[in-house]
Amino acid sequence: MLGAVPDRLATALADVVGDGHVLSDADVVAGYTVDWTRRWRGPAALVVRPRSTAEVAEVLRVCRAHRVPVIPQGGNTGLVGGGVPSASGLGGFPVLLSLTRLADLDPVDKTAAQVTASAGVTLAHLQDAAKSAGLAFAVDLAARDSATVGGMVATNAGGIHVLRYGGMREQVIGLEAVLAAGQVISRLDGLIKDNTGYHLSGLLVGSEGTLGVVTRARLRLVPRLGERVTALLGLAGTAEAQAVVAALHRALSTLEAAEIFYPEGLDLVMAHAGLGAPLGRRWNAYLLIECADHTDPTEALADALASLAAAGGPAVASDGAAVASDAAGRAALWAYRERHAEAVNALGVPHKLDVTLPEARLAEFETSVRAVVASVAPAAQLVLWGHVGDGNLHVNVVGPPPDDERVDDAVLCLVAGLGGSISAEHGVGRAKMRWLGLTRSPAEIGVMTAIKNALDPDGLLNPGVLLPAALSL
Amino acid sequence: MLGAVPDRLATALADVVGDGHVLSDADVVAGYTVDWTRRWRGPAALVVRPRSTAEVAEVLRVCRAHRVPVIPQGGNTGLVGGGVPSASGLGGFPVLLSLTRLADLDPVDKTAAQVTASAGVTLAHLQDAAKSAGLAFAVDLAARDSATVGGMVATNAGGIHVLRYGGMREQVIGLEAVLAAGQVISRLDGLIKDNTGYHLSGLLVGSEGTLGVVTRARLRLVPRLGERVTALLGLAGTAEAQAVVAALHRALSTLEAAEIFYPEGLDLVMAHAGLGAPLGRRWNAYLLIECADHTDPTEALADALASLAAAGGPAVASDGAAVASDAAGRAALWAYRERHAEAVNALGVPHKLDVTLPEARLAEFETSVRAVVASVAPAAQLVLWGHVGDGNLHVNVVGPPPDDERVDDAVLCLVAGLGGSISAEHGVGRAKMRWLGLTRSPAEIGVMTAIKNALDPDGLLNPGVLLPAALSL
Repeated sequence: MLGAVPDRLATALADVVGDGHVLSDADVVAGYTVDWTRRWRGPAALVVRPRSTAEVAEVLRVCRAHRVPVIPQGGNTGLVGGGVPSASGLGGFPVLLSLTRLADLDPVDKTAAQVTASAGVTLAHLQDAAKSAGLAFAVDLAARDSATVGGMVATNAGGIHVLRYGGMREQVIGLEAVLAAGQVISRLDGLIKDNTGYHLSGLLVGSEGTLGVVTRARLRLVPRLGERVTALLGLAGTAEAQAVVAALHRALSTLEAAEIFYPEGLDLVMAHAGLGAPLGRRWNAYLLIECADHTDPTEALADALASLAAAGGPAVASDGAAVASDAAGRAALWAYRERHAEAVNALGVPHKLDVTLPEARLAEFETSVRAVVASVAPAAQLVLWGHVGDGNLHVNVVGPPPDDERVDDAVLCLVAGLGGSISAEHGVGRAKMRWLGLTRSPAEIGVMTAIKNALDPDGLLNPGVLLPAALSL
Repeated sequence: MLGAVPDRLATALADVVGDGHVLSDADVVAGYTVDWTRRWRGPAALVVRPRSTAEVAEVLRVCRAHRVPVIPQGGNTGLVGGGVPSASGLGGFPVLLSLTRLADLDPVDKTAAQVTASAGVTLAHLQDAAKSAGLAFAVDLAARDSATVGGMVATNAGGIHVLRYGGMREQVIGLEAVLAAGQVISRLDGLIKDNTGYHLSGLLVGSEGTLGVVTRARLRLVPRLGERVTALLGLAGTAEAQAVVAALHRALSTLEAAEIFYPEGLDLVMAHAGLGAPLGRRWNAYLLIECADHTDPTEALADALASLAAAGGPAVASDGAAVASDAAGRAALWAYRERHAEAVNALGVPHKLDVTLPEARLAEFETSVRAVVASVAPAAQLVLWGHVGDGNLHVNVVGPPPDDERVDDAVLCLVAGLGGSISAEHGVGRAKMRWLGLTRSPAEIGVMTAIKNALDPDGLLNPGVLLPAALSL
């Protein structure tokens, strides 16, 4: 395959993007071919960095002509190996298509409350631009400085505001994308209502680079809510946290985030980041909530919590709450939650299993997963956190070697047995491809495969991600 | 085609659904094969009324074996001929698949704020069930007593609350559907976050019965907001109405509806329904807005309107506003908007052209479309109304014969020229299929056709709707 024609491929790609943007030095390429966790890595022939949709289209045409698979990559903050090559060299030595140079961000359309962003725009850049226009971008997540619009679209990123605004799919009004044969489809007109045929933009969201390469997105913005309150509550357990969130969600229109973590994660973060304890004593579960509104939501939150306790729901103890309405105080509370990922990564290479459970099974899962991991990997460290309003827990296991999949298998089977999803917001990638059948039926996988074959008949785009690699390349 | 084997087909279908649910009497069949406007009608061999997903699957297998196309139909409130046969007999005499007997509505899951509804459940039934559980279903539209969940999913119905909650697509957590070969795909587990592969449910939403037959839907519910205020404002024109809505949308989290209509429509409704004038004098445009919250939103709305006027925006005159916070008063104001459709239908068979314009071109379109219609059909009556917050106008033309498409062509070309969409919320159906290329590129239509061929290779489902009928049947 590639071995025979690397120079001709590199030359043809350089003709498209310029010499300086075809990277083949092994050390440079290596920086692109390993993920943030260091668990997922594999060889690539070279890295190509186009600057525009037209260049992406031409790159795909060249790769197709050379029969070389393509791995699209954004900010490389994915956690399931969906943006790096396969360790097994499956599909040969692919071209890694970095989209970070597609960094144009159009002026915010204040009237429509929309903006058009190219794939390489970071989330932080997008958020800043929205803020400057008196608006906000509804999705937020801890990797905001690196994660890009293209990657977030391709993986249907979730984050901390899903319970109020939905995830990335709900923010996408339309997309521009390049399909495998180089065709460009473009729907950037910003029309909220457009019922003219299949929702191709929606199909590309979450398709993990296997159906097309997203190059631009027309995104909705939401009103900027300047008044916020953040509260960290200590509670007796997961079930109590769920009860609080359900009650607040019913009582308040302002609830924007509801995050959960546990003592072992808090200890790790405190040690890693040198932080003191947030509450006067230790609790079984920590619930971080945030409300936002045009007017100060602090009192309404306090009232809602008091009503809940009066109605027999979980009561918040006097030493079980830290509340902040100012930016610095809120950031200090958020740090306990947001620094979990880096604290875990500092322990070693984590197995990251991001899962959803039905509301009614979340607390049971939280208990069971501790037993399951202890049984399969007794020496491992298990750290859990997540978005309790969405039934979404991030299961982090440090200890087992990266290529030992026994703990992955045990956790994902537990999830499936409880009626959950093996991927809440990170996607399937390479990490979970072999477990897709746990929760997706043969009929569903058959339809997905039919769509993949219809749009990418040569199996050019991200082979081995989400679905098994086709054999035609 | 069918002519040769009608009895065998009827017998085979009766074996699936029972004799009483295969309707072949010409008068009975005729009741299903004409739409609400009376503009779209065509012949069908028979009507089949299954009771369950399994029966739908078997019906599709039987029809496929007999090589007879299938036209799925819900409440038959569609306006683009997507649920009735082709007048030209294109694709032969099809089977009309009525889904109204799939009428099961599961108990509301209050904890998750979700419900599972079968395709034949009416919107009104769904809304009542949600209300009984202390929740609400976010989509609302005037045809609520007839429109069904399946039809609303298949057409991605919009309605009056899109600016707050999105349309039908945003309410669908997952679907159960039968594909052309009888495979059932089912995703009713209610998991908000599930990033395991292509978003098949989202692809089926708005596919107008051409990719699969939706049999059940898992739907999100929203908190029931008991306090409401409705205001009818008289304004100088469309641009002023847009300015008011944009300002309210920024200032209030509670804005739920923003409807526009014009004097000629108001006159028609008043005459048809025997209603008095809503405001002390006549205005160029009427804006109906509704806010809803847990607490009374009336004062906040008044404040926001006063702030807008103080900031140099459109001022509401003292004789230019009617406000109601009680149910009867609100219903009286809504009647002026909601009775437009029946008032127009009483004039004759309307040409109904539901379109979206970019925010910046909506007022220009409102003026231009009057000139265009006057030029093409000088004797016609033109009545406009719509959802101003979404840039969505319903263009109704009464006068030209149903099969005279000159006015359709002129209006849709005007829309495309202004960067709009030829279908905001009704879909493409048979009515607009030939104009799809006005706003969808050859690349997009190519992808849609590839998906159609991948999922329905025999062209069994709703041939001639949305895309040209395939020739294989």
